[in-house]
Amino acid sequence: MFKGTGASPGIAIGRALVYQEQELNIKKESVEGLEKELDKFQSSIKKSKVQLEYVKQEAMKKLGADKASIFEAHIMVLDDPELINQVKDKITNEKVSAEYAVNEVINSFITLFEGMDNEYMKERAADIRDVGNRILKNLLNVEIINLATLTDEVILVANDLTPSDTATMNKEKVLGFITNIGGRTSHTAIMAKSLEVPAIVGLKSITDEVKSGDLLIFDGGEGFGHINPDEQLLADFREKKQQYEFIRKELEKLKSEPSVSKDGRRVELGANIGTPKDVKGVLDNGGEGIGLYRTEFLYMNRDHMPSEEEQYEAYKEVLQKMEEKPVIIRTLDIGGDKELPYLNLPKELNPFLGYRAIRICLDQPEIFKVQLRALLRASVYGNLKIMYPMISSVEEVRAANEILQEVRGELDQKGIEYSKEIEVGIMVEIPATVVIGDMLIKEVDFFSIGTNDLIQYTTAVDRMNEKISHLYEPFHPAILRMIKMVIDHAHGGGKWAGMCGEMAGDPKIVPILLGLGLDEFSMSPISILQARKIIRGLSYSEMKKIAEKALNFPTAAEVKKFVAEEIDKIS
Amino acid sequence: MFKGTGASPGIAIGRALVYQEQELNIKKESVEGLEKELDKFQSSIKKSKVQLEYVKQEAMKKLGADKASIFEAHIMVLDDPELINQVKDKITNEKVSAEYAVNEVINSFITLFEGMDNEYMKERAADIRDVGNRILKNLLNVEIINLATLTDEVILVANDLTPSDTATMNKEKVLGFITNIGGRTSHTAIMAKSLEVPAIVGLKSITDEVKSGDLLIFDGGEGFGHINPDEQLLADFREKKQQYEFIRKELEKLKSEPSVSKDGRRVELGANIGTPKDVKGVLDNGGEGIGLYRTEFLYMNRDHMPSEEEQYEAYKEVLQKMEEKPVIIRTLDIGGDKELPYLNLPKELNPFLGYRAIRICLDQPEIFKVQLRALLRASVYGNLKIMYPMISSVEEVRAANEILQEVRGELDQKGIEYSKEIEVGIMVEIPATVVIGDMLIKEVDFFSIGTNDLIQYTTAVDRMNEKISHLYEPFHPAILRMIKMVIDHAHGGGKWAGMCGEMAGDPKIVPILLGLGLDEFSMSPISILQARKIIRGLSYSEMKKIAEKALNFPTAAEVKKFVAEEIDKIS
Repeated sequence: MFKGTGASPGIAIGRALVYQEQELNIKKESVEGLEKELDKFQSSIKKSKVQLEYVKQEAMKKLGADKASIFEAHIMVLDDPELINQVKDKITNEKVSAEYAVNEVINSFITLFEGMDNEYMKERAADIRDVGNRILKNLLNVEIINLATLTDEVILVANDLTPSDTATMNKEKVLGFITNIGGRTSHTAIMAKSLEVPAIVGLKSITDEVKSGDLLIFDGGEGFGHINPDEQLLADFREKKQQYEFIRKELEKLKSEPSVSKDGRRVELGANIGTPKDVKGVLDNGGEGIGLYRTEFLYMNRDHMPSEEEQYEAYKEVLQKMEEKPVIIRTLDIGGDKELPYLNLPKELNPFLGYRAIRICLDQPEIFKVQLRALLRASVYGNLKIMYPMISSVEEVRAANEILQEVRGELDQKGIEYSKEIEVGIMVEIPATVVIGDMLIKEVDFFSIGTNDLIQYTTAVDRMNEKISHLYEPFHPAILRMIKMVIDHAHGGGKWAGMCGEMAGDPKIVPILLGLGLDEFSMSPISILQARKIIRGLSYSEMKKIAEKALNFPTAAEVKKFVAEEIDKIS
Repeated sequence: MFKGTGASPGIAIGRALVYQEQELNIKKESVEGLEKELDKFQSSIKKSKVQLEYVKQEAMKKLGADKASIFEAHIMVLDDPELINQVKDKITNEKVSAEYAVNEVINSFITLFEGMDNEYMKERAADIRDVGNRILKNLLNVEIINLATLTDEVILVANDLTPSDTATMNKEKVLGFITNIGGRTSHTAIMAKSLEVPAIVGLKSITDEVKSGDLLIFDGGEGFGHINPDEQLLADFREKKQQYEFIRKELEKLKSEPSVSKDGRRVELGANIGTPKDVKGVLDNGGEGIGLYRTEFLYMNRDHMPSEEEQYEAYKEVLQKMEEKPVIIRTLDIGGDKELPYLNLPKELNPFLGYRAIRICLDQPEIFKVQLRALLRASVYGNLKIMYPMISSVEEVRAANEILQEVRGELDQKGIEYSKEIEVGIMVEIPATVVIGDMLIKEVDFFSIGTNDLIQYTTAVDRMNEKISHLYEPFHPAILRMIKMVIDHAHGGGKWAGMCGEMAGDPKIVPILLGLGLDEFSMSPISILQARKIIRGLSYSEMKKIAEKALNFPTAAEVKKFVAEEIDKIS
């Protein structure tokens, strides 16, 4: 049995695929048959090329030309005469094995590219490393797992999954993830929820314990599972899976029902998305809007800024698909843990307390204006709301709004249409923003609480830092009080408050958020129907009383206990 | 003329000493007279040894055996036969110049030590680099500036000054600092205030603009100055200096006066210190207590933990020298930007949001208990108050107090005496702590606001990050409101609130802190008399009204303007 952090709910039953970089053992040994080494090298290049052509075709079909271009770049590396000749010379002159020669030459190329002053060229070092690994694996007959060309259904077992792993993955064949590292808010967890597959993270050494082909069963909600279970266990899990699917089906009946409490308080349950493709999952799960469209993905994994046209198309697609439902698009939130190589961001000692998001946009308005133009142009296709991230002062909101006004003026001059009804709001994720909410609300139309960052700054805890992750606590009484302050400030100004952080969809927290008066909840699409069920089963006026009392307990443990007991009493 | 950030007040007039690592130009060239190269090498070693012996003696006299031991370690490197022989072999076998050989061998030693798994050995790489540089400079006849052996009075011009620069510096000869980088709260700024010499930081490229020997005049309060001024300017600055000294003399008359407002509100003006030696400056400047004794310095720049005895002696010395005046000793606040190599702290992505201070102490109580024992034992010699840093929850205070209680029990059992009157308080520097202050105050005897960190977390701004340092703003309305919350929570619990951050001594902010009801102000000793003068000139009841109104201005600029105008009106 294994136990970790449940990151995405559901029951998974399937064969393991351990996806992990293997240590390749390459030693310097002088060899005799140099012809043989040269032949081996040539055929490994040929084999690599065939593989990459296949991967490229598959990626093109499933992921589009944009993602497939990575593999085109890899094929070009294989054709580089400089590389080929250096390897051949090394084999011939130094009488070494093909794998040793490849390894040496690839490493010298990597060093060369990494040493360049140009961030884009530095990134190319990663391509060369990838291709070099492929050639070496083909030379050593080591199996190459490519997530883009999965043909059997598998449960992926990995140390961690990177955005580039999940971007190129053939998602149809993935039954679930289990990983060594990561927490509830890590990329792997968010991805699993977006794919609606079960996942457990933070399993420490699961990649050592599982072999590819092992039968795995696990519960992504509870965070535990078994390797090669006996018949009884397997039968139990099959039943659990049926039950889970039954509950999901029951929940699906709520798809078109309103999100309204027993005593008639209506809230909006929306979803967080990263790309236009995610809209389908939102609608399938009865989402009443999009509470957070993270536009960063448009900017990431590429070598230049997305054009105004490209952004316009993406925003338009989301707005059209959502019809007249509200869509909150957050302006660029880059920096922190999200880097853009072509922006040449400085290396920072504390990136979470650094140059990021609106700070970059106000400092480099030429970048910001392209996005705002694209947003305004797209606004005629639906119900757009614009949201600025990482706001910490009234000055910043005013500066951002001034730039927005400039862009409106430019469009007016050119006679380009845009909606006059766009609401403009801010993320509330910095403590200062909470504290001066009464003054900030006068400058905007709404607040949306970003709980991941708000908890992080309010308690001075980097949630990715394992040494102190026990201090990252959504039920910290200070966090609940801050949420209340935000909502009260918004209502005091006659405006509304939402939440687009991980807390908004947590079944244990949804009742208290209802009680605190939250107007809009934005979460992973998979969590919407469950949240709707919870809200429809509660009375707002009762939860309001409970929430108010909960704010006066000194510790998170006491708050949790009190809330759970009170909800038990009334339900 | 140059203009930067005024970091320490006063007028400096003197000759520049540009203190900067020079690029040494060392090329591989084959040489003929190998004997000559070997001789050159031998005499550079001899010369380096003579220099280091002298530096060691000087450091011993002025700084004590502890600091001098660094130079003893350097002399030992010069005696290392492994190093000497490798250089000689390289000269002989490869027919290269002495400087090329030294450079190569030193670099290979550095790589070796840096690659070791042991943090202490890694640190030794720095010693080897220092010694290697010295040998090379002697070989190349490049002048070596040693801050420990300054003989003429100078104004130091540097990129930045490190703790090790200032620790070994002959402070009697330093008239002031001007540096390229750093802000109001950087080490250089704090050091200048502690030495009571004028300083300007953040001058960007001042090391390129000034040559050693240039005549410099500058105003450390206003943050501007001139290089090689004409007669008229020089005369003006001489007059300014006289005026400044006159004002200082006038202020000295307040040394024994109480810190009391015109309408009779008495506050305590104390000082922040780092070592027992700083107590003299506190008393010379009329300090009424020590609001923050940073015990980190006991733990830094060494290869093992300080013993209980060593800590006991330091705490006792401070308590005795301060007689019955209150002394707040902060327990270990390590981590963040302050590393201890022998603690093997993990490298962190965001150290300011990481494993530090009380988090380490609660995780490793064996370290914490040694300090608490030393504190309790020393408590019989004066008026000790203990303060925990980086508290973010009630749970942490309770856990720390439990450990303190355990230590009391152990001392009771052994019949060791300690004071029963020790107040125990916490730093308020994390936003969560402010928000739940009403619950935290029940667990402690006092609050002390740490403004540097509080501003940093509240606004999500790393104050050392130059790209966003403009966002680090003490007059941010959220900061003023948080300060008010802390004070109100303390008073609501019948306790008192102090401040030991940089704001507490800022003449522009002192009036508003008085108005907000702050009970204790702890600052650089040099700022105490000026703060006393300000407080004695103001009415608390008037300032209270002004402070309350100030909290409702939406921007820092408006707050500043309002406060300045109101104070103008009443004074």
